[in-house]
Amino acid sequence: MSTPDAASAGAGATPARTPFDLPDVSGLVVGVLGGTGPQGRGLAYRLAKSGQQVIIGSRSAERAAAAAAELGHGVEGADNASTAARADVVIVAVPWEGHGELLAALRTELAGKIVVDCVNPLGFDKQGAYALKPEEGSAAQQAAALLPESRVTAAFHHLSAVLLEDREVEEIDIDVLVLGEERAATDTVQALANRIPGMRGVFAGRLRNAHQVESLVANLISVNRRYKAHAGLRITDV
Amino acid sequence: MSTPDAASAGAGATPARTPFDLPDVSGLVVGVLGGTGPQGRGLAYRLAKSGQQVIIGSRSAERAAAAAAELGHGVEGADNASTAARADVVIVAVPWEGHGELLAALRTELAGKIVVDCVNPLGFDKQGAYALKPEEGSAAQQAAALLPESRVTAAFHHLSAVLLEDREVEEIDIDVLVLGEERAATDTVQALANRIPGMRGVFAGRLRNAHQVESLVANLISVNRRYKAHAGLRITDV
Repeated sequence: MSTPDAASAGAGATPARTPFDLPDVSGLVVGVLGGTGPQGRGLAYRLAKSGQQVIIGSRSAERAAAAAAELGHGVEGADNASTAARADVVIVAVPWEGHGELLAALRTELAGKIVVDCVNPLGFDKQGAYALKPEEGSAAQQAAALLPESRVTAAFHHLSAVLLEDREVEEIDIDVLVLGEERAATDTVQALANRIPGMRGVFAGRLRNAHQVESLVANLISVNRRYKAHAGLRITDV
Repeated sequence: MSTPDAASAGAGATPARTPFDLPDVSGLVVGVLGGTGPQGRGLAYRLAKSGQQVIIGSRSAERAAAAAAELGHGVEGADNASTAARADVVIVAVPWEGHGELLAALRTELAGKIVVDCVNPLGFDKQGAYALKPEEGSAAQQAAALLPESRVTAAFHHLSAVLLEDREVEEIDIDVLVLGEERAATDTVQALANRIPGMRGVFAGRLRNAHQVESLVANLISVNRRYKAHAGLRITDV
């Protein structure tokens, strides 16, 4: 039996700062690849509404511009490469099927950038959703392998696109689990999550532990079916 | 991009009853294999304090009896086989290393019983915890494979043994994700979780989606290190 606390007692360096001392990210430009899909649109809307400068990317610049116009709040649209090149932080919200190919093509544009992977590799059959296991371990680890010059993190996996896009919903009641290897990058992503009312970014480990966070969406789908809900997560005692 | 709601819209039979309509489990005898370890002791203590009849099992009946006496609240101790034979519901809280061997040896005693697997297969190195991937997919699926005549469920993965065992703590602030194939069995386990003040059982899918629930403990360990917490989960909108 492994319990969360039993293992936490021993190792681990104490961070110099408090984990709640996060950087000011209000001046950062956020790009959203796959920004015309429901999750991408919803995230772009929430971040822009919170005052962030947001560009949504798509294969088609025209489609991105049209979606951006609908979102309002100063959101711009562009093709994926321009979006990646112009943004400081790039959220990857594309379908798993096109994930590797898109990232490999944008390696140059994404060099030096904070990349936030929020892709959930899932399969579906008549019993519902189940986890796919990427060869690299997870979508986030695939991104890290394809983008060695980027600062790859993983976050925003468990959001309901329905709630994100619903303009009647003022607060998004969820903790965003943020994973990554580099403290400054995960701090930045946590701070971005904190910009959205109701949302909170919580550091939740290294990329090698991203698979279970990504595939937990399969469980949330089961919760949603059983309870007719738009389920999210909160971390207690933090 | 898969979002929890996008996939939940289409399929799934509507349950006949409300998911909150759970059976009365107050008369069931609960056995805890590995009941002398911190997680097992803590669960036994909480359930017995809530009025459940509890037997803790161990390889050594003497050690089990001694631990039971310390727990009070009518907890009994026995060897693992007697515990399995006497209980209606059997919680498996042993270390992953001995999991398969123990269950294979108790196949007869566990036939027809509801088995609740709460084992988290994890590895540890200097960077912390990481998920192990059992050949069967998860500890719960290994249990199901070894116990074809039992009603195998998975639950109670994310509990802090420190909080469970702390007699100053009155409420355990956590949602227990309950997985399984059979509605009557998962309903029973949810109802058991609900007996413990603060705790709530939430159905969260089939056993094929147990791996990510089990290995999410690695992420909670990272949360606990960063925030000096005893982190747990809550499901929002349910």
